[in-house]
Amino acid sequence: MPAFDLAIRGGTVVTAADTVRADVGIRDGRIVAVAERVEGASREIDASGLLVLPGGIDSHVHIAQDSGPGITMADDFASATRAAAAGGNTCVMPFAMQKKGESLRGAVEAYRRLAEGQCLIDVGFHLIISDPTPEVLGQELPALLKDGFTSFKVFMTYDDLVLSDRQLLDVFDVARQEGALVMVHAEGYDAIRYMTERLERAGRTAPIGHALSRPEVVEREAAHRAISHAELVDVPIMIVHVSGREAMEQVRWAQARGLKVYAETCPQYITLTAEDLDRVDMEGAKYVCSPPPRDQESQRAIWEGIEQGVFQLFSSDHCPFRYDDPKGKLNPRGRSSFRWVPNGIPGIETRLPILFSEGVSAGRISLNRFVELTSTNHAKFYGLYPRKGSIAPGFDADITIWDPARRETIRQDALHHGSDYTPWEGFEVTGWPVTTVAGGRVVFDRGRFVDEAPAGRVLQRDLSPYAVPRGRAPAPSA
Amino acid sequence: MPAFDLAIRGGTVVTAADTVRADVGIRDGRIVAVAERVEGASREIDASGLLVLPGGIDSHVHIAQDSGPGITMADDFASATRAAAAGGNTCVMPFAMQKKGESLRGAVEAYRRLAEGQCLIDVGFHLIISDPTPEVLGQELPALLKDGFTSFKVFMTYDDLVLSDRQLLDVFDVARQEGALVMVHAEGYDAIRYMTERLERAGRTAPIGHALSRPEVVEREAAHRAISHAELVDVPIMIVHVSGREAMEQVRWAQARGLKVYAETCPQYITLTAEDLDRVDMEGAKYVCSPPPRDQESQRAIWEGIEQGVFQLFSSDHCPFRYDDPKGKLNPRGRSSFRWVPNGIPGIETRLPILFSEGVSAGRISLNRFVELTSTNHAKFYGLYPRKGSIAPGFDADITIWDPARRETIRQDALHHGSDYTPWEGFEVTGWPVTTVAGGRVVFDRGRFVDEAPAGRVLQRDLSPYAVPRGRAPAPSA
Amino acid sequence: MPAFDLAIRGGTVVTAADTVRADVGIRDGRIVAVAERVEGASREIDASGLLVLPGGIDSHVHIAQDSGPGITMADDFASATRAAAAGGNTCVMPFAMQKKGESLRGAVEAYRRLAEGQCLIDVGFHLIISDPTPEVLGQELPALLKDGFTSFKVFMTYDDLVLSDRQLLDVFDVARQEGALVMVHAEGYDAIRYMTERLERAGRTAPIGHALSRPEVVEREAAHRAISHAELVDVPIMIVHVSGREAMEQVRWAQARGLKVYAETCPQYITLTAEDLDRVDMEGAKYVCSPPPRDQESQRAIWEGIEQGVFQLFSSDHCPFRYDDPKGKLNPRGRSSFRWVPNGIPGIETRLPILFSEGVSAGRISLNRFVELTSTNHAKFYGLYPRKGSIAPGFDADITIWDPARRETIRQDALHHGSDYTPWEGFEVTGWPVTTVAGGRVVFDRGRFVDEAPAGRVLQRDLSPYAVPRGRAPAPSA
Amino acid sequence: MPAFDLAIRGGTVVTAADTVRADVGIRDGRIVAVAERVEGASREIDASGLLVLPGGIDSHVHIAQDSGPGITMADDFASATRAAAAGGNTCVMPFAMQKKGESLRGAVEAYRRLAEGQCLIDVGFHLIISDPTPEVLGQELPALLKDGFTSFKVFMTYDDLVLSDRQLLDVFDVARQEGALVMVHAEGYDAIRYMTERLERAGRTAPIGHALSRPEVVEREAAHRAISHAELVDVPIMIVHVSGREAMEQVRWAQARGLKVYAETCPQYITLTAEDLDRVDMEGAKYVCSPPPRDQESQRAIWEGIEQGVFQLFSSDHCPFRYDDPKGKLNPRGRSSFRWVPNGIPGIETRLPILFSEGVSAGRISLNRFVELTSTNHAKFYGLYPRKGSIAPGFDADITIWDPARRETIRQDALHHGSDYTPWEGFEVTGWPVTTVAGGRVVFDRGRFVDEAPAGRVLQRDLSPYAVPRGRAPAPSA
Repeated sequence: MPAFDLAIRGGTVVTAADTVRADVGIRDGRIVAVAERVEGASREIDASGLLVLPGGIDSHVHIAQDSGPGITMADDFASATRAAAAGGNTCVMPFAMQKKGESLRGAVEAYRRLAEGQCLIDVGFHLIISDPTPEVLGQELPALLKDGFTSFKVFMTYDDLVLSDRQLLDVFDVARQEGALVMVHAEGYDAIRYMTERLERAGRTAPIGHALSRPEVVEREAAHRAISHAELVDVPIMIVHVSGREAMEQVRWAQARGLKVYAETCPQYITLTAEDLDRVDMEGAKYVCSPPPRDQESQRAIWEGIEQGVFQLFSSDHCPFRYDDPKGKLNPRGRSSFRWVPNGIPGIETRLPILFSEGVSAGRISLNRFVELTSTNHAKFYGLYPRKGSIAPGFDADITIWDPARRETIRQDALHHGSDYTPWEGFEVTGWPVTTVAGGRVVFDRGRFVDEAPAGRVLQRDLSPYAVPRGRAPAPSA
Repeated sequence: MPAFDLAIRGGTVVTAADTVRADVGIRDGRIVAVAERVEGASREIDASGLLVLPGGIDSHVHIAQDSGPGITMADDFASATRAAAAGGNTCVMPFAMQKKGESLRGAVEAYRRLAEGQCLIDVGFHLIISDPTPEVLGQELPALLKDGFTSFKVFMTYDDLVLSDRQLLDVFDVARQEGALVMVHAEGYDAIRYMTERLERAGRTAPIGHALSRPEVVEREAAHRAISHAELVDVPIMIVHVSGREAMEQVRWAQARGLKVYAETCPQYITLTAEDLDRVDMEGAKYVCSPPPRDQESQRAIWEGIEQGVFQLFSSDHCPFRYDDPKGKLNPRGRSSFRWVPNGIPGIETRLPILFSEGVSAGRISLNRFVELTSTNHAKFYGLYPRKGSIAPGFDADITIWDPARRETIRQDALHHGSDYTPWEGFEVTGWPVTTVAGGRVVFDRGRFVDEAPAGRVLQRDLSPYAVPRGRAPAPSA
Repeated sequence: MPAFDLAIRGGTVVTAADTVRADVGIRDGRIVAVAERVEGASREIDASGLLVLPGGIDSHVHIAQDSGPGITMADDFASATRAAAAGGNTCVMPFAMQKKGESLRGAVEAYRRLAEGQCLIDVGFHLIISDPTPEVLGQELPALLKDGFTSFKVFMTYDDLVLSDRQLLDVFDVARQEGALVMVHAEGYDAIRYMTERLERAGRTAPIGHALSRPEVVEREAAHRAISHAELVDVPIMIVHVSGREAMEQVRWAQARGLKVYAETCPQYITLTAEDLDRVDMEGAKYVCSPPPRDQESQRAIWEGIEQGVFQLFSSDHCPFRYDDPKGKLNPRGRSSFRWVPNGIPGIETRLPILFSEGVSAGRISLNRFVELTSTNHAKFYGLYPRKGSIAPGFDADITIWDPARRETIRQDALHHGSDYTPWEGFEVTGWPVTTVAGGRVVFDRGRFVDEAPAGRVLQRDLSPYAVPRGRAPAPSA
Repeated sequence: MPAFDLAIRGGTVVTAADTVRADVGIRDGRIVAVAERVEGASREIDASGLLVLPGGIDSHVHIAQDSGPGITMADDFASATRAAAAGGNTCVMPFAMQKKGESLRGAVEAYRRLAEGQCLIDVGFHLIISDPTPEVLGQELPALLKDGFTSFKVFMTYDDLVLSDRQLLDVFDVARQEGALVMVHAEGYDAIRYMTERLERAGRTAPIGHALSRPEVVEREAAHRAISHAELVDVPIMIVHVSGREAMEQVRWAQARGLKVYAETCPQYITLTAEDLDRVDMEGAKYVCSPPPRDQESQRAIWEGIEQGVFQLFSSDHCPFRYDDPKGKLNPRGRSSFRWVPNGIPGIETRLPILFSEGVSAGRISLNRFVELTSTNHAKFYGLYPRKGSIAPGFDADITIWDPARRETIRQDALHHGSDYTPWEGFEVTGWPVTTVAGGRVVFDRGRFVDEAPAGRVLQRDLSPYAVPRGRAPAPSA
């Protein structure tokens, strides 16, 4: 066996299925051996007492997205990918967002230009379709799928993004024919507007109004509607950022019926509640995201979903704004009503420690399930497998070395994202990323960036194996 | 890296999570490397175009068990382990059955004596507790658990084995305290007797009466009862050989409530139906097993459970009798009434091809789920992990090389078990085991036994990680 | 006790709760006594061996409605109320349909003019709101509620009637404030259009296409959406003409959660199937109604709902067109595609015998439940109680004398409605109406009209006791 | 129309379906007219402003039952029927309890002797079968059914009463053949004993131990088991005194599947909780009954069941013991452990005001549902209909005149039962019985007994219409 560029030795290698003491040998940016002993490497990392995990993949992040007049997202591709790497991630999947009236291809090119040459780690773009014209559905989308943009997101709310039921059905139909994986933001537009106007008429304009304007029933109804449309068209869907019991139970019901309905949840739904939006002054604005965090009972429901396999993905839905900034949460209109507070919270850097601590350290889930939820399944669902998502010969050398015993307190001061706050200020965790290896390069180690070259690539992805009709193999196999 | 005793090269290695092209290096009976290239082995196997799977573990088989006066089980440990190996298995878990009035320790020693020096592959005994005296529960069972017999089965039916509810509760209580994993045969004794007597009074004594005497509601009731007792005591249970929709839905209901209820199913419940018991003359006796096969709707339900994660294990419940034999199915009393037909069918050799063909080849489950259901989870649930159940450094070199494309027709003529028939005579499958490697030894290769030394061990097993109270890690982790 | 105008003697009086042998004494159009013996009446009817039932109330009929260019509904108020009376009914509730751009008040006046002086029995109009302008919601609707038009229907489909989700929410909001009862036609417009276009592109234009274009999932989704909107607004709703298992189970689920969701079903959903739409040539057009009849499994589900109390109302959804008529089913465009076949079937005269025969005579429901489903609950839900819906002192003398043993075969020849066919041609029933007494007048007796004076009134109705917020009495009481 | 013995004038007559202003005319102990005006009566009662209800029927009371050595039940037939009448009841159904080893017929004769000549109102005995010998099942039970004892109760717990599963099945089988209605006390004997011994070992012997020894899962398991046995045998059952969410949901699940499973609940399960058993000193003993009261969540579940029709009956399960009495709750052994505290609480006199106040006055149920739950359904289920349970010609003149507005506080001082306490001491209610008419006699009026003659009869009852096989009419009809 030839020599290695890098060996990670003495650690405990964890995959979605297995936990073994083994060395890992890396050459040319890829893993080439997992063995009892890997010798003859140019460089060695001692991982004794530590876990060797597939690098985190965060398949739901928003970076440098156009957020409307006067609002600026707090991260560009440089800062977002640095923050991601510092948080134990080796790949992120942001969105290339079509604006109504614009070309989808144009959007992809614009976002690609923003990303290229800026990223510390690999990125793979999902599309956002907001204007499904015949041209978009008939020409652009199929062509982009062939180019490796194999998943897209649709919205059931937001003025600039909402699709009608008919548009959803037409888009689902194209996804079925082309084998694209559809991500669905499930909240009902009309219901939110109805509630928002009622609240504003009643003078309830503080940030907590955001949570009151989109109660669980609004998310549940949209989830049921999306599931029904998917059932009618016979296409799989991924319902993203499920926040509470009502929507979770719709997903569980659909899965029990044998429908190909998949779901994602996020750290905010196991740690925050609507009460956080009710903090004094405008502090609540820091927690405004959609869907909003719910209550303790919904947190229990989300854990049920995580433990019982209802959820396949655990993402951050990183959507960063600055708080004390006229282009952020406290923009002038945002102060006048919750409806103008930009929706979203930063989370790209804290996702892994939060799930590890609340899940693995607290005894709710196994290490293997942690890896599956944070890395393997992201690769499998979004066409990056068997290139990313595990530690085995042939995979990209995307690895996070993790200290399961380390206790830390999350503090904005120590984070690297572009926001000026974190919703988890003061949150205590057990388990912390120590070293991040991306494509065989050690990019972050014990608190410091050690290789800052923007070598991250914009990835072409395969079709999702989950987006193929029943009767063909539903998951990655030989 | 030093040399290897054996290398399996060029194949596709499959674990419960991953599918990768890799070589496997073996030394001293254990796997030491999974790498792009493993060179320097004393012996090489070319696995090009084939799958390299963790050897099948069949955690539910009956071998050489006392089956009552005049009846003889068709397999001893030699024939059973040979048949298992020919069918792609590298480990089986039979039962050491206590008889009422006897010592549990004595039963273990007796069965161990039958096994030692006879087995081609490793075996691990579960206990069967039929007489939970204070001595058994207070002394023998805890001691046997310490000796590595860490799981036991209890019966809710059968004259010689049935435990009362109070006995079940007391046994569960000991399991909770000691960390043993309880397997439950869930069918209601009184209901079966009530139905049996009704049928006999009506002259319905043919083999189909067996199915009529234990309809789904009988299994459902017992499953609910076992679940409730487990909930009361707060102990995990494994409900074995779930046969139909009703019991499956009880398990799913319990899991959705967060109870630690696990379940196993078997090939007979996805391929056979009660109509098989209604074949002419006494042919139906060939299919008499408990619970009985159901109908098409229940087959669909069992597939739902397999696909949706309700089931963790897929075993054979191999319980072999000869058909045309006065000590087998056609014993004199068995001809007079279904109630005397010995319960059980042979299946140790056909389990893997049936699930592979109906599951993987038919597109219902992934290769990884196949491995999980037939090997990894058996090791994890029954305390053999991380020693068995995967292909990674440190694991026993228990490997099955599999041809996913090979089409075969199951025929008694080609099988190696002790029965004189197979319930799957003429059943066509796609996918077949080619070579079985047990503890680093090639024991079966392309239809022939190539190493017949009875080197299989009686295993000591660790406590099941699934049999620990909530709040501690629920699954194997570092 | 003074004398009576009419006495019905010797029969068995049935209410929603009780079944007793009693005489009924009538004076001035109202019931004044139910007693062992009622003597001294000007006229007596001998009801020996017969049932004396509250006259049928059919709260879902369409009469003389504008049905689009070139299409004419087959019944006017004279023919519809005559047919209703011949079928054992003493009150019907048609719709005053607002057209988009028109005034709601104007619609009411127009329909009232069509009805007044034409009706053999009493009629009470529901409103149909198709254009919920601020004027309609803020002025007209509240005023009309005060005038006794206390219920209205909204549509989730049909080009000319469909409301958007926002309109539904706004209309529900007004209903909540004003105490109106909302009836919902739950089928999803966009999904139907999507399917219709797919079918037409595939050349599937025969009448069966109607059923294929609105499968159960389309009704289920709309039902869930309506339930969710009602939950958000906190208003009760009545989901009309539930056709199959999927929608029925949504209603049952909502009821089990404590939501005030009520439901109606119709004869077509327990007797017809989609196969009827697939009859040769254009025969299938005779069965085109919305939602379409489903299959045997859905018929079982509807019976479950009837027996278990999921449904409160059993109506006809009488919506009559002629078949062999260029202004009816076989209009020129209707021959070219199912989408132009007018939706609806005649059923005003056959509702009661069908439910009696399939329900009471077949042993599925009690006589009392029959009365509740066909009369009492219609009065209670729509503000006619305690004026109509039972046989007790003070109620209108609206009575049907019924022969439970009479066997009849339904034949178009013997019916009185305006259609030229009945979907139940040749259907055999046990149980048949003998005499209809409306407001104390014997109007129909043993096959002949005996009092043809158009004395039926347009009723002012009270607010529905079911349309009041939780915390106030949910049902009629002192 | 001839004259009447008694007329009740000016009130609002309520049945299970209707609410009407009417007079009621009575002759020879039966109702003969319900009319706008009833004149010419020998005696008149002015019911202006009051409700005229069918007299309460309490189908679940224990009177003068053998309660084991040293324990005496606090009511004999004289005191129990007086208390019942004072509480608005006109009929009660106690039990004739077979003791193991004794004859069932003998038990009936013994209890009948205790009752005859002692009762102020009518009584109808259920049987309790504790020893289902072939003689009992084959001879005595069929004969007693013919004699009008058409329902019986079986126990799944209690040392002296518990039946094995096989005995339950055999008894159910006889019920199916003979058309008897089976009442089931659903709590699991072995589970209770297991818990009781655990608690006693832990020194937890105070009354709260009673609740801890039979948690909801114990009731749920037994309910599921009873339902399954009934499904296997195909016989209807009535599960009595359902106490909490878990058992309620089993009943709802069974009903949704179309099984003929009926259920009863009681005042203690909507007003008391397990915390009442935890009162200081031995006060908790006053609340010891089986199943024990649960918690707020279970109270909500019981209300769901009442409102949604899961429950058909609301009874008291009156089972009276004195508290401060060596033959009652505080017997010497009872002080030493909860297991010796006699199970049961007095409630015969307070059932109607509690349900009226918490149900009708609080707006949860209608007046009609109140009548159905407390009178009509008891008559219908237990073969007393159309003799009792409504106000209509031909029915026994069993009537309660009720003041819906009267506010009272329940106090032991004002009650007439034999216990020395009431669990509802200080409980405030709105709605109170004013006058009780039994068989046409005014027996209790405005707080005083006005006719104390023990004219109550021991009733022969018809077979229950609910205990007939599917396919025949399920409810009372002509």
